[in-house]
Amino acid sequence: MPTAAVYYGEKDIRIEDRSAADVGPGDVAIEVRACGICGSDVHEYEAGPIVVPDDEPNHMTDETLPLVLGHECSGVVRETGDAVETVSVGDRVSVNPVMVCGDCRYCDRGLYNLCHRGGSIGLTAGVDGGFAKRCVVPAELAIPIPDGVALEHGALAEPLSVGLHAVRRAGVQPGDTVSVFGTGPIGLGIVGAARVAGARVIIASEPSDFRRNRAGTVGADHCLDPTDTDPVERIGTLTDGGADITFEVAGVEPSIKQAIRGTDRRGTVTVVSLFETEVPIQPNELVLGERSLVGSRAYSTGPLADEDWGMTMQNLATGAIDPANFITDRISLETIVDDGFERLVDPANEQIKILVEP
Amino acid sequence: MPTAAVYYGEKDIRIEDRSAADVGPGDVAIEVRACGICGSDVHEYEAGPIVVPDDEPNHMTDETLPLVLGHECSGVVRETGDAVETVSVGDRVSVNPVMVCGDCRYCDRGLYNLCHRGGSIGLTAGVDGGFAKRCVVPAELAIPIPDGVALEHGALAEPLSVGLHAVRRAGVQPGDTVSVFGTGPIGLGIVGAARVAGARVIIASEPSDFRRNRAGTVGADHCLDPTDTDPVERIGTLTDGGADITFEVAGVEPSIKQAIRGTDRRGTVTVVSLFETEVPIQPNELVLGERSLVGSRAYSTGPLADEDWGMTMQNLATGAIDPANFITDRISLETIVDDGFERLVDPANEQIKILVEP
Repeated sequence: MPTAAVYYGEKDIRIEDRSAADVGPGDVAIEVRACGICGSDVHEYEAGPIVVPDDEPNHMTDETLPLVLGHECSGVVRETGDAVETVSVGDRVSVNPVMVCGDCRYCDRGLYNLCHRGGSIGLTAGVDGGFAKRCVVPAELAIPIPDGVALEHGALAEPLSVGLHAVRRAGVQPGDTVSVFGTGPIGLGIVGAARVAGARVIIASEPSDFRRNRAGTVGADHCLDPTDTDPVERIGTLTDGGADITFEVAGVEPSIKQAIRGTDRRGTVTVVSLFETEVPIQPNELVLGERSLVGSRAYSTGPLADEDWGMTMQNLATGAIDPANFITDRISLETIVDDGFERLVDPANEQIKILVEP
Repeated sequence: MPTAAVYYGEKDIRIEDRSAADVGPGDVAIEVRACGICGSDVHEYEAGPIVVPDDEPNHMTDETLPLVLGHECSGVVRETGDAVETVSVGDRVSVNPVMVCGDCRYCDRGLYNLCHRGGSIGLTAGVDGGFAKRCVVPAELAIPIPDGVALEHGALAEPLSVGLHAVRRAGVQPGDTVSVFGTGPIGLGIVGAARVAGARVIIASEPSDFRRNRAGTVGADHCLDPTDTDPVERIGTLTDGGADITFEVAGVEPSIKQAIRGTDRRGTVTVVSLFETEVPIQPNELVLGERSLVGSRAYSTGPLADEDWGMTMQNLATGAIDPANFITDRISLETIVDDGFERLVDPANEQIKILVEP
């Protein structure tokens, strides 16, 4: 019986029978209820291995592909190792996929998301993730899902935490004007988190009609189409000079340039996207306006995971963020390639988050 | 009798007799003792008018060239307007050259250095500056020089404030590791101010032997020549991973790239230079390391000038910064072109700051 979608390399994901890892004393085995497909997964499928370890194993785990992708997962604990005290069989959990070494200069300072040696389950760590019926993870990464959050919505904790982290890293405060360039899953999470943070005005710039409209549903006050409007000019008008805080979540040259120019003097541009190539920027735009360009990576993890992960769970529990706005389809493990990866390769297929439900 | 060096445009500075402006009720007339030649002045001489208003007058003053350059000046008050209460005839003052409108959205927030409409005396404001025997300025810009600071050293308050502002904007704290790319007058001021701010280790990268050695005298612990050492690798070794705070004061592509890569994860690169063109950067270096690229412009001015200007005066008064390390020549007004501008055009002439003493 097929039990997992196993990634072997570019365009090579095989649905096959694969045993989950043994449950060590500190591990838990989870029956996966839902696992979201992330843009990183799609990149690995399209052109990988990129960040999945291949010739060079992950520093900490010493693992390489083949592996089960999937780092946005929720499920029910079915087995616990002898030393596990934090969760019990039957608990509903979401998986924080980030393994950290706990011992490098960044972990020592609580900057676990910058850990030198760690990696993500189902991706950079080289160990099996959530596109499987069962997955085994260290117990500290199995985070109980609070009452009021549906089990499958626990799978959104990961991508939504990326957006919340960016909003916290940017320092959005009540009354700020915010603009967001690119409203895929992460950009939409930023719109939602900026609303939670008390932003006065949120402006989204997004060329896809589907995603732009979705930004309005999630909480953007103005949704601009950069193919027919100059977003810099329009943001300048709407905010009387530029947004206090801007997020670059598109990862392309026009967008990062517009993000800088659409930001007020002394404002902050937070870059969340990864870029395929270098991009030309004019540093004078930073100097003369005392603007800042700030990188944001993933979310707080390790012992401090609750900073982002816990608040994201709370946003789902209170309804401050409505998961229905993010999930555009639910598919089976068996059809993950055709109904999942292949559809996400082409942005014309109007999708935000597809959940795989094994 | 020649009384001023008047700027008419590219390579056209004329030593001629020019009456100082009338002393209005809120103005003071200053007998200039010293005025430093800034890199901006040299750019105007070499290839201007660049920021000096020509066809389009300054928004606030409605002035254009010809004008007397010079925005780093000190002297003695010789006449005060009827309404002036802050300084008296005979007072020793340095001139804060920045005129602000006091009424824009940036002035309203105390961000006077980002004022939309203002400008610098002897430069962007289009009004006469300090390369003259006498200059007339609004009284609030004439800042008393404290005891213990020589009159001519008051002319260093302006460039040193630029360095101090950058250090404050970067948030340098005691114990931080700091690197400085480019140690001309501003970079050297940053080295000195970082020392005052308690930096644990200061590393300078500068290709000119003369300026690199000067960085050591001012307070850098390690002085690297980027033409024979990889500064990124060396900074990584010296700081165990990268500097906490880096300053880009060279304004060229290799330098800003090295500045980013030589900065630790979660570190800050403060850009102080202006660049002639766009430069290609890889935003992933910001994202994956959560690094920040922060612009710093001029110094606190307007009613808050004391934040940078006052502290700079204090650094000179206490000896924390030794003005002798910055002044490499003193020349007369009459020889300003040959002994001043022409020598500063070529970096092979080993100069930091040349003071004109009218």
